Amino acid sequence: MHHKLLILSRHVSEYRTLIDAADLPDLAITSTDDPAAAAASARDCDLALGEPSLLAHVLPVMTRLRWAQSTWAGVEPLLDPSLRRDYVLTNACGVFGGLMSEYVFAYLLAHERRILEKYASQQVVRWDPTPPGTLRGKQLGLLGVGSIGSALARTAKHFGMRVNGYTRSSERCPDVDAYFHGHHALVEFARDLDYLVCVMPNTDETRRLVDRRLLHALPPRAVFVNPGRGNVVDTEALAEALRTGRLAAAVLDVFEHEPLRPEHVLWRTPNVLITSHTAALSIPSDIASVFVDNYWRLSRGEPLQCRVDFQRGY
Amino acid sequence: MHHKLLILSRHVSEYRTLIDAADLPDLAITSTDDPAAAAASARDCDLALGEPSLLAHVLPVMTRLRWAQSTWAGVEPLLDPSLRRDYVLTNACGVFGGLMSEYVFAYLLAHERRILEKYASQQVVRWDPTPPGTLRGKQLGLLGVGSIGSALARTAKHFGMRVNGYTRSSERCPDVDAYFHGHHALVEFARDLDYLVCVMPNTDETRRLVDRRLLHALPPRAVFVNPGRGNVVDTEALAEALRTGRLAAAVLDVFEHEPLRPEHVLWRTPNVLITSHTAALSIPSDIASVFVDNYWRLSRGEPLQCRVDFQRGY
Repeated sequence: MHHKLLILSRHVSEYRTLIDAADLPDLAITSTDDPAAAAASARDCDLALGEPSLLAHVLPVMTRLRWAQSTWAGVEPLLDPSLRRDYVLTNACGVFGGLMSEYVFAYLLAHERRILEKYASQQVVRWDPTPPGTLRGKQLGLLGVGSIGSALARTAKHFGMRVNGYTRSSERCPDVDAYFHGHHALVEFARDLDYLVCVMPNTDETRRLVDRRLLHALPPRAVFVNPGRGNVVDTEALAEALRTGRLAAAVLDVFEHEPLRPEHVLWRTPNVLITSHTAALSIPSDIASVFVDNYWRLSRGEPLQCRVDFQRGY
Repeated sequence: MHHKLLILSRHVSEYRTLIDAADLPDLAITSTDDPAAAAASARDCDLALGEPSLLAHVLPVMTRLRWAQSTWAGVEPLLDPSLRRDYVLTNACGVFGGLMSEYVFAYLLAHERRILEKYASQQVVRWDPTPPGTLRGKQLGLLGVGSIGSALARTAKHFGMRVNGYTRSSERCPDVDAYFHGHHALVEFARDLDYLVCVMPNTDETRRLVDRRLLHALPPRAVFVNPGRGNVVDTEALAEALRTGRLAAAVLDVFEHEPLRPEHVLWRTPNVLITSHTAALSIPSDIASVFVDNYWRLSRGEPLQCRVDFQRGY
């Protein structure tokens, strides 16, 4: 069977080069970074690869679409109920674990090691022998234990931490010491955490999960890290917890509306670090590998990896 | 056989509590943080536990000394040729790997993640989507692959790095990809490093090992991290390499003279981060475990762990 692939991405030339280099059989490729320009050729394509935000524009005309590979982990733009769902959607799963781990542990270690405080001392030429803390023996709480959460748990174990996992159902990660399920278990989950890290998708069930009750259940020494989705957090409750010292610090990569407006309260809230949605940028070579692997599966008639459940939302 | 232990440490009460709690047989303990006060009772002691800088003061009167356990990894104060060597000296080996790993990777990740740059952007309320780097695929060079270097290599592998090891002789670490031996191999060792980390002891052979030639062999993107010993570095050559952009940055924990004087050139050298000798502070519970384990070995007539070779210097 012959396939026609639409590559629609801001990184179109990188993806084109990578997919061409894979020399996949029975595949014709059309590629662009412009959804308007893509519309005409999109009609004939049965496959698509690109950013969900761009693919959403051409989805209505892609009547022959059989499979779309997202270059992102989150696929919200393609979940709009007005859009077609008569195709297989796969996301970029399994490729962000390493990057997310670098992001999260960069900030956990920076907090223990007082990197910003040491730097401030240096600016005033002050020898600062303040002892650092250590991750060893500290407790990490993961909101979400999918492929990213599992990667974080593995790194946590490498540094000698204990790991609590809060999930909907699955308990498949060997690096999680204790699992918690359901809203009623959240307070127990949070009780003794040094770090709370949110790597949940944005769904109806996760919206505002990090609320006043959860934040107040954390010890005041706790640090909240959010490289997941902005909607999962009640921003007002978070800002209040930081202002009143009920929470030691927050490292925030994602927000409900990005870029974060200059007048937003979080810019002026104490002990917030803002990283401007850079925690885990898609690396084209990683995503291309997922696509190529899935293309071979498709051609062998096997189920594709990282398939999104439209109903569940991830 | 009955033993008498002198605990001579700035953390005397912690060590006393920990050693008492171990309830070791046939052991009488005297403890103080004051070398002058210790002198009288030290004469009768056959065992000692403490900081090398303090133990050096009482060593001349400790004619019955059979074994001394250092609370530090480095034992330079006890290597002075005027001091006795008719006893077994053990250091705190195997306990700093984890802490050193947290220190080194805190700064490696902070560099890749641009933590200080992101923080500076935040101070001027600027959304800063500058992409971060990643440790994956980067090359780490270890000057020294003992117990600390091996721990660093293991963490490097966790993050997907390649590891070069420069050592005197041993090649026992499975996480090192390529070994280099001898001064003539230093340029080859350094050629393609992203990070050069020095965890060598201070000996005649390592003094000024990080000199102009080695620094010039590094690519300009390289970052030098020194949590080892200050004497290993030619400070003038390092400052010059940083000033001229031949080296991207340096993270320095140790110096020939500490605390670093306010007028020292390194305070004013660009892209230097100074951490004031806090990379791996001795944690009494860790050191007490080493002592207790060695005490049991002593009482069974077995060789002690972490024995220092006075000739070699570590």
